[in-house]
Amino acid sequence: MNPHCAIIFARSHRSRFISELKELLRFPSVSSEPKHARDVRACSRWLALHLKNIGLHHVQLIRTTGNPLVYASWGRDRRAPTLLIYGHYDVVPAEPLAQWKTPPFSPVIKDQNLHARGACDDKGQLFCHVKALECFLRTHRALPLNVKCIFEGEEEIGSPNLLRLIERYKKALGAHAAVISDTKMQDPGRPAISYAQRGGLRAELRVRGPEQELHSGSFGGAVLNPLQALCEMIATLHDERGRVAVPGFYDDVREWSNAEREFMAGVGPADDKILREAHVKQGWGERGYTAYERTTIRPALTLNGISGGHAGEGSKGVVPAMAAAKLSFRLVPDQDPKRIAQLFRRHIERISPDAVQYSVHSEAPTSPVLIDRTHPAVRTAAVAYRNAFGNPPVFLRSGGSIPVASAIQEILGIPVVLMGFGLPDDRIHGPNEKFHLPNFYRGIETSIWYMSLAAQSLRDAVTRPAVASEWVL
Amino acid sequence: MNPHCAIIFARSHRSRFISELKELLRFPSVSSEPKHARDVRACSRWLALHLKNIGLHHVQLIRTTGNPLVYASWGRDRRAPTLLIYGHYDVVPAEPLAQWKTPPFSPVIKDQNLHARGACDDKGQLFCHVKALECFLRTHRALPLNVKCIFEGEEEIGSPNLLRLIERYKKALGAHAAVISDTKMQDPGRPAISYAQRGGLRAELRVRGPEQELHSGSFGGAVLNPLQALCEMIATLHDERGRVAVPGFYDDVREWSNAEREFMAGVGPADDKILREAHVKQGWGERGYTAYERTTIRPALTLNGISGGHAGEGSKGVVPAMAAAKLSFRLVPDQDPKRIAQLFRRHIERISPDAVQYSVHSEAPTSPVLIDRTHPAVRTAAVAYRNAFGNPPVFLRSGGSIPVASAIQEILGIPVVLMGFGLPDDRIHGPNEKFHLPNFYRGIETSIWYMSLAAQSLRDAVTRPAVASEWVL
Repeated sequence: MNPHCAIIFARSHRSRFISELKELLRFPSVSSEPKHARDVRACSRWLALHLKNIGLHHVQLIRTTGNPLVYASWGRDRRAPTLLIYGHYDVVPAEPLAQWKTPPFSPVIKDQNLHARGACDDKGQLFCHVKALECFLRTHRALPLNVKCIFEGEEEIGSPNLLRLIERYKKALGAHAAVISDTKMQDPGRPAISYAQRGGLRAELRVRGPEQELHSGSFGGAVLNPLQALCEMIATLHDERGRVAVPGFYDDVREWSNAEREFMAGVGPADDKILREAHVKQGWGERGYTAYERTTIRPALTLNGISGGHAGEGSKGVVPAMAAAKLSFRLVPDQDPKRIAQLFRRHIERISPDAVQYSVHSEAPTSPVLIDRTHPAVRTAAVAYRNAFGNPPVFLRSGGSIPVASAIQEILGIPVVLMGFGLPDDRIHGPNEKFHLPNFYRGIETSIWYMSLAAQSLRDAVTRPAVASEWVL
Repeated sequence: MNPHCAIIFARSHRSRFISELKELLRFPSVSSEPKHARDVRACSRWLALHLKNIGLHHVQLIRTTGNPLVYASWGRDRRAPTLLIYGHYDVVPAEPLAQWKTPPFSPVIKDQNLHARGACDDKGQLFCHVKALECFLRTHRALPLNVKCIFEGEEEIGSPNLLRLIERYKKALGAHAAVISDTKMQDPGRPAISYAQRGGLRAELRVRGPEQELHSGSFGGAVLNPLQALCEMIATLHDERGRVAVPGFYDDVREWSNAEREFMAGVGPADDKILREAHVKQGWGERGYTAYERTTIRPALTLNGISGGHAGEGSKGVVPAMAAAKLSFRLVPDQDPKRIAQLFRRHIERISPDAVQYSVHSEAPTSPVLIDRTHPAVRTAAVAYRNAFGNPPVFLRSGGSIPVASAIQEILGIPVVLMGFGLPDDRIHGPNEKFHLPNFYRGIETSIWYMSLAAQSLRDAVTRPAVASEWVL
C-alpha cells in the first residue's frame, strides 16, 4: 500500500494531531500513586474512544486488578503479516513540582517542543503510531497489514498485570513482529534503533528502630538510629571502584567481545556527550568501561529516594523511629532478576545490625532484552527511519527497561523493534519533560513507512506457523 | 510568706488551671516552621495577657527579629532576693501526624494525662510557675520575693535571639537565681533536679549531583548519585565502636572521676529502664559507658532526617538531583560547639567525593551546662520538692540542651535551678506528647514552696553586689 497519501494526510493535519495529543497529556495518569487511579482510568477511556473513532476494530478496555489495558485491532487477512504495536499511557509522578517551569499536566508548546509529563514517555511516542494508523484508515480505508494494539497503564510500575495477560492471551496476541516506541534517538538528526534494554528490579529496604521518634537529647548516643543504620547499610552497596558490592552480583554478567565493544564505541555516544546530557561535570562508575557501556552492558544499582526522620523545614532534634530507601537495579544479560533479589536480601541480612529491625521487599523483576539487529523486522525499521528522517538510524543499546519487551520476545516468540523518537534532552521522568514536535511529525511518518514496508518484508514470516489464530481478547 | 493559703487556692482551682493550660496548648506555636509564625505570635499575646491578668507588672512583648519574648516582673524590694523564671512557649513540629492518637493541638485528658504537643515541653511546665505566681497574688496580693519572668518563643530553634537579648538587657535581667522547668523526673514518685545539660549544635549537609533528577535507566551507573554519596558520607560519622568518628571530636571531652561516676550509677536510671523508655530491645553506643552515661557525660551525633529523591508512595526510577541530611550534636564539658562545627566541616571536606558538590551549614551552638549541686538556690529546690511530692529529689544529669541555661549562668552569673516536672514517658518531641496532671498540680505546689523558701535562703545573696538594678526591659 502506497504510503504517500497517508503521509500527505499526516502533514496536513499536524495541528489537529497536536491538539489531540495535548488532550491525552492532560490526564495525570500516574500509575504509581493510588490517588491518581481515577485519572488513569479516565485516560484509558479517552484512548479507547479515540482508537474507535479513527476506525480500529475490537476496541476494548481489558480489566485487570490494576489499570486497564487498551486493546484494538484491525484486519484479519491470514496472508498478510500482523504487527503488534505496544505503548503505555501511564506516567511517572511529576514531583518535584517546584522544578517545573510550566504545570506538568497543562501541555504547552515552546520552541517546537511540547512540554508535559508523559510528552515523550510515552504518550507522545505512542501517539505517533495511533496517528499513522489514522492516516492510512482515512486515506485508504485500510491498513497495509494486520495490526493489534496494546496500550498499557502500568508500565511505570513494572507491568505487573500485562505480563500475566500476555501469557493468558498468548494466542490472541499472536503477531509476526512487535514495535515499541519508548526509547530515544541519539540526536535530533540521527534516529536510533535500540537493540538492547537493561532489565530491572525494584527494591525497598525498611529499617525500624524505636517504637516512635525519640528526643535526641534524652536518647541520642544510647539507641541505634534506624536512619543512620540505613545509611550505613546503603554505604555497603558500592565499593570504591564504583562497582555494586553485593556478593555474587556480577557472577552472571556477560562479557562482550572486543568486536561488539568496538561497534558500540563507533556508534554510541562519547562520555562527554552523556555527561553533558546529565548536566554533570564529572563521571562516575565502574572502572574500565565508558559511560555508554556503564549504562548499557554493565548493571547498576541506583538509590531512588530515602525517607526517615524530619525532612521538612526547620529542625527537630529527634532519633527517627524508622527509615526507608527505594532502590532500582538495572540488570544486563545474563543476570536473572529473581536471583539478584535473593542476593540483595542475603547481603542485607548479613550486614544489618542487631539493634534495629529491617525488611526487604522487591518487585517488578524485568529481564534484560537483546534483539537480533539483522532480523527483517528490524532492517525494515532502518529503511522506514531513513525515508522519514533522511538519515539511516544507528543501532544503540538502551539503559532503561521496558518490562513488556522481554515478555513479548519470550512468550510470543517474535522480534521487538524498539523504534524510539525521544531525544536525549527530553527529560523523561524529570521535571520539564518534553517531546520535540519535529520528531512527532517524523515519528508518524516513520510509522507509516514501517507499516507500508513491513507488509512486504514480513510476508515470509507469514508462512511460519503463526500463533496468530485469534483476533479478539 | 506562708505558702499554705496559696497551696489551698491552687488545690481549689485545678479545673480552671487545666482549662487555661488547654487554651495555651491550642496554639500550634511551632517555632521552626515559618507557616506557623502567626500562631507563635498569637500564643505570645495570649500568654502576655494572661500574665497581666494574674497581676504581674511590666508585662511586655519584646520584639526580636524572630518570635517575641514575653516579659513580666513583680516587686522591687531591694532587700528581698530576685528570682528569674524562664520557660518557652514554642514547640517542635507535630509531624508525623498519622502517629498521633488525638490531634496534637486539641488537648485531651486521658487517664490523668493531658495530651497535646507542648503539654510537657514546655507549656505545661512553664504554666506551673505562672499558676504558682497567681496563687500568691490572689491570696496575699504579693509574692514572697521579687520575680522576673522571661518566656521565650524560640527555644526549639536554639534561642537565636534570646542569647543576644540577655547580653543586651544584662542589667535589667539581674537576679539572684534562675529557675527553669523544662526537664524530667525519674519516676512519677521521684522528683529530680538536673545539675547538668548537654550542649548542642545543629548541622545540615547538602549534596548536589545532576542539575535535575535523571532517569536511572539512562544514567544509572555513570553518574554519582548525590543521595548515595550522602549516605556514604553519613556512614563515616560513626565507627564500629559506636563512637563519633569525626577526627578530634573527643579531644576536649572531660573524663569524670570514679566518685562522680559512682554517684551517677547510684541515682541514675539503669540501662534497662532507659531502653524501656525508648521502647527498644537492645542498646547501642560508645563502649565502656552505661546508657545513662552515654546520654549525659558522653557526646552524641544524631541524624535527625534525610530528604532526597522520590520518598512518596510508589516508585520512580530516578537518580536524585540533590540530597540533604539534618543532624544534631549533643556536646559535653569541655567541648566547644564552635570548634565542633569546624571539625565537622573539615571532616566532610576530607571525605566528600569530587563528583558531587556539597555544603555544610551549622547553627544553634549551645554550650553544655554544669550546676553546683550545693548552691543554696539548688538545695532550696530540694526542700520544695520534698514538701510538694513527699519525696526528696535525686540529682540527675540531662541529655538535652536548654540553650538559655548556659547563657544565664555565664552572662548573668547566677545559678540555674533545673526543676523538672516531666516524666520519662511524656514523649516530648514525639507523637502523643503528654503531661501527667498530678505533676502539674505538684509542680504548682513545688513552685509555691520554692518561692516561699527561697525568699529566706537567698537572702544572703542579696548582700552581694546585685546586677539587679533595673526592672523594666
